[in-house]
Amino acid sequence: MIIVLKPNPDKAQYEDLTNWLKSMNLKLHESTGELTTIIGLVGDTSAVDIDLIGAMEIVESVKRVSEPYKAANRKFHPDDTVVEVGDVKIGGGHFCMIGGPCSVESEEQICRIAKELKEIGANILRGGAFKPRTSPYSFQGLGADGITLLLEAKAETGLPIVTEITDLSQLPMFDEVDVIQVGARNMQNFQMLRELGTGDKPILLKRGLSNTIEEWLMSAEYIMAGGNKNVILCERGIRTFETSTRNTLDLSSIAVVKEKSHLPIIVDPSHGTGYSKYVESMSLAAAAAGADGLIVEVHDNPAAALCDGQQCITPDAFRALVKKAGAIRGALGAV
Amino acid sequence: MIIVLKPNPDKAQYEDLTNWLKSMNLKLHESTGELTTIIGLVGDTSAVDIDLIGAMEIVESVKRVSEPYKAANRKFHPDDTVVEVGDVKIGGGHFCMIGGPCSVESEEQICRIAKELKEIGANILRGGAFKPRTSPYSFQGLGADGITLLLEAKAETGLPIVTEITDLSQLPMFDEVDVIQVGARNMQNFQMLRELGTGDKPILLKRGLSNTIEEWLMSAEYIMAGGNKNVILCERGIRTFETSTRNTLDLSSIAVVKEKSHLPIIVDPSHGTGYSKYVESMSLAAAAAGADGLIVEVHDNPAAALCDGQQCITPDAFRALVKKAGAIRGALGAV
Amino acid sequence: MIIVLKPNPDKAQYEDLTNWLKSMNLKLHESTGELTTIIGLVGDTSAVDIDLIGAMEIVESVKRVSEPYKAANRKFHPDDTVVEVGDVKIGGGHFCMIGGPCSVESEEQICRIAKELKEIGANILRGGAFKPRTSPYSFQGLGADGITLLLEAKAETGLPIVTEITDLSQLPMFDEVDVIQVGARNMQNFQMLRELGTGDKPILLKRGLSNTIEEWLMSAEYIMAGGNKNVILCERGIRTFETSTRNTLDLSSIAVVKEKSHLPIIVDPSHGTGYSKYVESMSLAAAAAGADGLIVEVHDNPAAALCDGQQCITPDAFRALVKKAGAIRGALGAV
Amino acid sequence: MIIVLKPNPDKAQYEDLTNWLKSMNLKLHESTGELTTIIGLVGDTSAVDIDLIGAMEIVESVKRVSEPYKAANRKFHPDDTVVEVGDVKIGGGHFCMIGGPCSVESEEQICRIAKELKEIGANILRGGAFKPRTSPYSFQGLGADGITLLLEAKAETGLPIVTEITDLSQLPMFDEVDVIQVGARNMQNFQMLRELGTGDKPILLKRGLSNTIEEWLMSAEYIMAGGNKNVILCERGIRTFETSTRNTLDLSSIAVVKEKSHLPIIVDPSHGTGYSKYVESMSLAAAAAGADGLIVEVHDNPAAALCDGQQCITPDAFRALVKKAGAIRGALGAV
Repeated sequence: MIIVLKPNPDKAQYEDLTNWLKSMNLKLHESTGELTTIIGLVGDTSAVDIDLIGAMEIVESVKRVSEPYKAANRKFHPDDTVVEVGDVKIGGGHFCMIGGPCSVESEEQICRIAKELKEIGANILRGGAFKPRTSPYSFQGLGADGITLLLEAKAETGLPIVTEITDLSQLPMFDEVDVIQVGARNMQNFQMLRELGTGDKPILLKRGLSNTIEEWLMSAEYIMAGGNKNVILCERGIRTFETSTRNTLDLSSIAVVKEKSHLPIIVDPSHGTGYSKYVESMSLAAAAAGADGLIVEVHDNPAAALCDGQQCITPDAFRALVKKAGAIRGALGAV
Repeated sequence: MIIVLKPNPDKAQYEDLTNWLKSMNLKLHESTGELTTIIGLVGDTSAVDIDLIGAMEIVESVKRVSEPYKAANRKFHPDDTVVEVGDVKIGGGHFCMIGGPCSVESEEQICRIAKELKEIGANILRGGAFKPRTSPYSFQGLGADGITLLLEAKAETGLPIVTEITDLSQLPMFDEVDVIQVGARNMQNFQMLRELGTGDKPILLKRGLSNTIEEWLMSAEYIMAGGNKNVILCERGIRTFETSTRNTLDLSSIAVVKEKSHLPIIVDPSHGTGYSKYVESMSLAAAAAGADGLIVEVHDNPAAALCDGQQCITPDAFRALVKKAGAIRGALGAV
Repeated sequence: MIIVLKPNPDKAQYEDLTNWLKSMNLKLHESTGELTTIIGLVGDTSAVDIDLIGAMEIVESVKRVSEPYKAANRKFHPDDTVVEVGDVKIGGGHFCMIGGPCSVESEEQICRIAKELKEIGANILRGGAFKPRTSPYSFQGLGADGITLLLEAKAETGLPIVTEITDLSQLPMFDEVDVIQVGARNMQNFQMLRELGTGDKPILLKRGLSNTIEEWLMSAEYIMAGGNKNVILCERGIRTFETSTRNTLDLSSIAVVKEKSHLPIIVDPSHGTGYSKYVESMSLAAAAAGADGLIVEVHDNPAAALCDGQQCITPDAFRALVKKAGAIRGALGAV
Repeated sequence: MIIVLKPNPDKAQYEDLTNWLKSMNLKLHESTGELTTIIGLVGDTSAVDIDLIGAMEIVESVKRVSEPYKAANRKFHPDDTVVEVGDVKIGGGHFCMIGGPCSVESEEQICRIAKELKEIGANILRGGAFKPRTSPYSFQGLGADGITLLLEAKAETGLPIVTEITDLSQLPMFDEVDVIQVGARNMQNFQMLRELGTGDKPILLKRGLSNTIEEWLMSAEYIMAGGNKNVILCERGIRTFETSTRNTLDLSSIAVVKEKSHLPIIVDPSHGTGYSKYVESMSLAAAAAGADGLIVEVHDNPAAALCDGQQCITPDAFRALVKKAGAIRGALGAV
């Protein structure tokens, strides 16, 4: 951490600051120029509150040199984390295909789609039970019943399931759910993250619509700080001025996350683009860029889907996508 | 709502679509050109799921003509809503000054600041008890104790209090709180909004960091759909590429909200700019633009504030601001 | 185009509007509801000035149904455009690798790198002569001399060259340049686009930092409206709030452009990410997503590059990238 | 400037770097910790190419502590710059009202509006001759004839005129124009900026749609580096995800610019919001925030304006605005 002081800092305040810093076991290196004094802090600064320092009267600016996260940081954990979901592995070279409808609609629907996905080669089944919808007048999901139906589809096919929690009060219903999804809107619901960190169930942490990669890793840190190491990151697009896609899928986050963190990262091209016609292109791009998996909305009758039908692909399209993503990974492995 | 069909739509699907629309009591007007057919829907379309239509095979695009919100819509409620908080009125020409520290730190601190604010002329006291912080290693607020201390400050000064809820499980602690704040990160925590809509306690709904004004009004609609009409909107800046301010305070939202909705809107220049040095300029701008109030972080020792000290102003600066904002409102009233 | 009128429009103004529209050979279809009247316009609306209509007193809003560009529109030109640069083809299944230093620095430098790139298999040589730099105190490129040196490298290797024009006054110096690059900052320099449209030299049109895909295609339309059909689009990242990359490379633009237009689209992962360490990941992603080529900054001594060295890759890294991108394209072709 | 080195930097490269820095008359202060070495540079770093340093193999990151601009920097020029346009002063407490139509349409139109504006109290007349339009099929302005007509309006009323240049080749036509406007799309047309810096005619420099305040000041620096001190900055909105306004008018830029620079800053609420109905609110906000003036689109028949009619206000609305902005400035001056 680097602290830049204003010209001619008050001596008493200066002593207060430096003594306080030293009390945190930090080493200080100072450079004094004509206009500014710079203090370099060496040591573990992840617990130093940068806002506190920035507010001091004698301080012009503070900048971090090292990342503010530790458990999620590759520097302190060089090997890839591999998250295990039943027999399925994610990360460390293991690629995972997750598919399923936006919403669970009925037992018949979810079991039919699950069987088809299983046959195609999907590894995990997704489906929404609690649906966050912008309008209070839109379909809000089947709730607890949706989870029951997902568990039936799991029983029939053996596919592990992932579904979204939208409020902590729902947590008891997630006992048998294999992976709990934290949606983009809850990426900074810190109370939720803390609570999910106390267990060891895998958490699929979606990137917030307007969150930086650093903030995303800080949210992973919240979960990991509680002891839960099983975090899977999921890029699903950020909000920009572009309107021809629903969001702007930021595939460069794959390489950035791989550099900064050891956690696996998968990509959601369905929410990322908002249109089924763009899903294959971005899925293949994600596979080529080094993602650890894909989570794709699949519905056998997109036009009748109770939400987000515009972005669902058909099982046939999913089959083609599995094949092509596999071909890309095979080709890159062989180079 | 306007539906644009693809060229040569399948007849059976076309009949399905139009019959379904008619079943919702909508009148249809069609325009058929060489390349496209356009269907205009006339009637109450706020409950029509635009995604469902957009997903249909024969549909090229769907666009809303009218707003998707009703209770929050000025068209159906031309008069300004005035929210009453004890004796304090917000909206409809009543301007409200809210001040207080970012975090409640101690009984002595909050009571001292409250008394000073009361003397200056603030109408409501703010203070954080549950603090959403990006890092798990930062100060997270005093929690329930913080609310107790706020209530003591209220008892001493008579100032009503506003403080933020970060999880529904905290709701019982807010019984005596006058205004519940929903923070930017929870603007689309729909379960929370729904629950807060069942009572009639005033809700201060902050705009999400990356949310459009329409989405913001839809979140107000969630609260109002449950029966609670006491919603105060709060602009606090959106996320953009600009880094010299913490956020970009979108003051044009004042005029947009006033046009589209009857709800009062106040402005938070502290989070909106992130720096105390820019707070006065933006506060006066908000007052001139027609805001119904300001919510400002005030601390008598910003450098020692336990969070966000960089953006706190001193009581003296707050006093100047109250005076200047009053002068502007007086001058505009006299023109 | 769809025009939504305000309630109870003035009759005289209404007649003026509809007569004017009919005078442009458009057919009008009207739908009148209780609150709104909708006019659907059928016919060629690309020349209709949407702003003019939107400004009328009786008009609530206007929306386009069809795209405002024609020459660049795939609807009117279903086959892929293939741009030929000497023997090199771009588009329609032809993949093009463009490489070279950010800036031309010396004859020795550009010829040495060009020979190496030629040997590796690059198709076109890039190099900056006129450099747009944010600071007036940074190196601004060799100017005309830079072009001379590029032409020498071309003479030595046979590689066609592409370099950026930053002002129309430079145009005479581009006589022997094979492809003229219009940089992101000039994407809406309409006078420049118009002038470049009068010839038939291939134009590499970079996407502006904050421009939508539709605006980008409108800029292509400016060039094509003058008669020049040889436009190559180049995605190079848009500006967002994310700071861990220089820009946010919007790879979904590939699929969107392929759907809306027949023009070839290539990707610049160097400016798109700003860091050499992320270039391979995004290059492979672009190839998998269906791009028609890549333009990559290559320098044999990035640390000594006179600009943007941070984002240059070495010839060895370029060699690996060519191999891997080829493997991906081969694998996808074989599925 | 602060340079953070990677762990265990190569010694030879380290010596190269430090010797090179010392050769630029910079003093170096080093802090060596377990994981990182930090070099603080003290002295005039505005001419140091930050990219060059960042590209070096041994460098992890580089950050500026001081601003990269000098001539535009308030630190080196504490007093407000006052730009004089004939008898009109802008900056340093002088508030300037600029009004006029988006486009010059005819002699009759521009003279009629100019006379009305003069009577209302406008200080400068604006009007577009060369119009940058997104579509090649939209009205592009009267060009040279437009400037002739503006000069006639000036002759009739005595109002100085401001109009936009879109290409350097037009410069000779601007001989008698009082203020040359550089539009948002040309804010980083560095060749244009450099050329305009060689004279002393006042330049109205609009902020680019996606440019930071620092980049904007760097563009002012381009002009000033050539010797022209007469730069007026103009905030006109940035591009964000919000669609209910055309752009997001960033009024916090007023306070930021006033802190960092001595140049005057005015605000364009017409382009900033895109709708006449929001112009008054944002104009008053700008006046209260401390802007040095306003530039507003005024047309006596907005519905018949040849471009951007949606955002023009009528002379009557302009009259009200002048009165109210004056009242605000009066009230603030009297506090």
